Amino acid sequence: MHRAESSHRRREHEVEFSRIVAFSDGVFAIAITLLVLNLSIPEHLPGDDLTDALWDQRHDLFAYALSFAVIGRFWVIHHRLFGDVTGFDSRLLGVNLLYLSLIVLIPFSSQVLGDHGGETAAVVLYAANLALVAVMGQILFAHARRAGLLKTEPETYREGRRRSRLAAVVFTASIPVALVAPHVAPLLWLALVLDPVQRRARAARHSGDAE
Amino acid sequence: MHRAESSHRRREHEVEFSRIVAFSDGVFAIAITLLVLNLSIPEHLPGDDLTDALWDQRHDLFAYALSFAVIGRFWVIHHRLFGDVTGFDSRLLGVNLLYLSLIVLIPFSSQVLGDHGGETAAVVLYAANLALVAVMGQILFAHARRAGLLKTEPETYREGRRRSRLAAVVFTASIPVALVAPHVAPLLWLALVLDPVQRRARAARHSGDAE
Amino acid sequence: MHRAESSHRRREHEVEFSRIVAFSDGVFAIAITLLVLNLSIPEHLPGDDLTDALWDQRHDLFAYALSFAVIGRFWVIHHRLFGDVTGFDSRLLGVNLLYLSLIVLIPFSSQVLGDHGGETAAVVLYAANLALVAVMGQILFAHARRAGLLKTEPETYREGRRRSRLAAVVFTASIPVALVAPHVAPLLWLALVLDPVQRRARAARHSGDAE
Amino acid sequence: MHRAESSHRRREHEVEFSRIVAFSDGVFAIAITLLVLNLSIPEHLPGDDLTDALWDQRHDLFAYALSFAVIGRFWVIHHRLFGDVTGFDSRLLGVNLLYLSLIVLIPFSSQVLGDHGGETAAVVLYAANLALVAVMGQILFAHARRAGLLKTEPETYREGRRRSRLAAVVFTASIPVALVAPHVAPLLWLALVLDPVQRRARAARHSGDAE
Repeated sequence: MHRAESSHRRREHEVEFSRIVAFSDGVFAIAITLLVLNLSIPEHLPGDDLTDALWDQRHDLFAYALSFAVIGRFWVIHHRLFGDVTGFDSRLLGVNLLYLSLIVLIPFSSQVLGDHGGETAAVVLYAANLALVAVMGQILFAHARRAGLLKTEPETYREGRRRSRLAAVVFTASIPVALVAPHVAPLLWLALVLDPVQRRARAARHSGDAE
Repeated sequence: MHRAESSHRRREHEVEFSRIVAFSDGVFAIAITLLVLNLSIPEHLPGDDLTDALWDQRHDLFAYALSFAVIGRFWVIHHRLFGDVTGFDSRLLGVNLLYLSLIVLIPFSSQVLGDHGGETAAVVLYAANLALVAVMGQILFAHARRAGLLKTEPETYREGRRRSRLAAVVFTASIPVALVAPHVAPLLWLALVLDPVQRRARAARHSGDAE
Repeated sequence: MHRAESSHRRREHEVEFSRIVAFSDGVFAIAITLLVLNLSIPEHLPGDDLTDALWDQRHDLFAYALSFAVIGRFWVIHHRLFGDVTGFDSRLLGVNLLYLSLIVLIPFSSQVLGDHGGETAAVVLYAANLALVAVMGQILFAHARRAGLLKTEPETYREGRRRSRLAAVVFTASIPVALVAPHVAPLLWLALVLDPVQRRARAARHSGDAE
Repeated sequence: MHRAESSHRRREHEVEFSRIVAFSDGVFAIAITLLVLNLSIPEHLPGDDLTDALWDQRHDLFAYALSFAVIGRFWVIHHRLFGDVTGFDSRLLGVNLLYLSLIVLIPFSSQVLGDHGGETAAVVLYAANLALVAVMGQILFAHARRAGLLKTEPETYREGRRRSRLAAVVFTASIPVALVAPHVAPLLWLALVLDPVQRRARAARHSGDAE
């Protein structure tokens, strides 16, 4: 496969290609913004104390922050993957839609987690949702590579793949953790979501540091 | 009609043309994401059993998955059609808006189907909504062709048109099916929505397989 | 003012310019899609008759269709205006935001109209909302022209301006009509919204008819 | 740092770069449009007087207008900042996501302000939200500059930075003001939001006035 040809292919279908990317971004952006609807204060408070009502939202606020970080992190991964994609086929479209349908479920899982965070079923639901997204992301990645739709060089590719696989493993592993210790699983997710951001900040690819 | 001229026309109004495409994608993306609002668990559960409450959402979850697949499928068709469009006129704008107004109704029909799936009226409403979208898609397609706004080659064109017509026929036929056997119609829709994705995956157009 | 210079100016700030357009389209697309949230059927029906409940939604469905047409029409006008814009300044940004804030109010006015269509206050609210949008659209148009940001030729310009002014006059005139005869005003709006679409379809600018 | 190289870098990653911009715009557009959901009239009014019910929405309408202006203003600032950005790194992505998570909170703070505007806690919450956005905007700005990702000339840069810092200072200062005089703080915000729009309108950068 010649690099020049691939990027030509992409440039030829630029509008079509950028529509897939724009559609995916739209879904990510809407899903991440709908998270705010899980926060709400009734207009007429029974005890009439707003400070108490706001304090009662702290679990919902934690779920909001966690889910914003999670969706944001998945968006960054998706963003990087599609930055390396040089073309698309029908299966990529299909798998991408399946992937997005799991992203869109996160506001629901997040609402359940915020309202019923102490219960095992809520934590298992959230863990299962994240694990499914991570696994489907692996499938998306694997298909793009197998179909020759990626332009990533081997070493970068292997690094990204290792990290992505780690996420899938840890999110899947958090399901049994949630069953045993529902309060530990959220910390596990936070660690995974926040760590790579920090690490990548140091690496600072695409930046002007080297000039 | 010269191909060179057509694509020039499109390139000349690139910003205007891509706004129509972007607007349509935006509406598709928002409609598909709003489906998640049909899933919800009350904050205070009467019986206090979250697992039961989640299990009660299974019909809503089926409606979510079905509608996500349906809207996603219609988006792929729309995406392919506009990939072949070389220009636009005012009628295309108008028919496209009508088409989108029917897409936006799907979250409503889906909510009714999820909550009242056992009742004939819910299934008929959903079938009618899908049939109207498919028929309006035919009209959109037919207008674009008649006005010389398509660049598709005859054989690809005829294939796409046959498939699109099949969808319109089957969705319309599912209305009387829904009246007689409301539990069969959803399976019919699923078959239609999932099959072409599989079939097209094998064909793998735009892909790098042939290299 | 040289045409070449203007379009250069626009091309130079292409990303910035297209962000304003994309942002406006996003707001239009979200506002038009949120209209569907005004349609809803309770999960547990008291009389248990879904057909009746759906029939009760007919006023909401009318408000949905009307508002979809209205927002769609305003979007088409906005789309045409920005197709002729060759640059932007801070005031254009500000007036555009004001304009969008009135567009975003339409789902609210539409909900009130759907639920309380028989009452004068609901019709006046809707009429006032539309009139404000139309007048603000005039101001947007006038500013773009005065600041030399439009590339439209005189005759096209005058035609568009006459039509846009007509909309502003009729929507404003529908406010007193709503006070006297609340059932007549909606028909007036429908006439205005549907007519120009038809008329422009015949004119078929940008189309391939002439080839 | 050579200007030519920087803009080359941006052009090279045009799709990737414009995805960040498009994603941010999407989040801004959705957050600003979700504000309308804070306005609503019950379908069945107890006293059956729609005019009274609409009049009761005046605080919600004020919160709507204020928050629309606030989000719009922050969008304009974000828009100008990214108009000067010549590249991106992982940290810019991360800080931008944090910034957006605070923008998305505004519809929630706005709902609380509209429903409980008389109470200190509501005003403090709103003030804190705005202050956090303004401070995070400063951090975004500072990082982009430090990483050499900005192309702004010194004098323009210093002017923008001074103004941005002013916003951060005043919004932060409005927190204690809200504690002492909850009715004064909203006027302070309005003054800040409306003033620069006016002032910049006079300066009319990017406009065709000088031709």
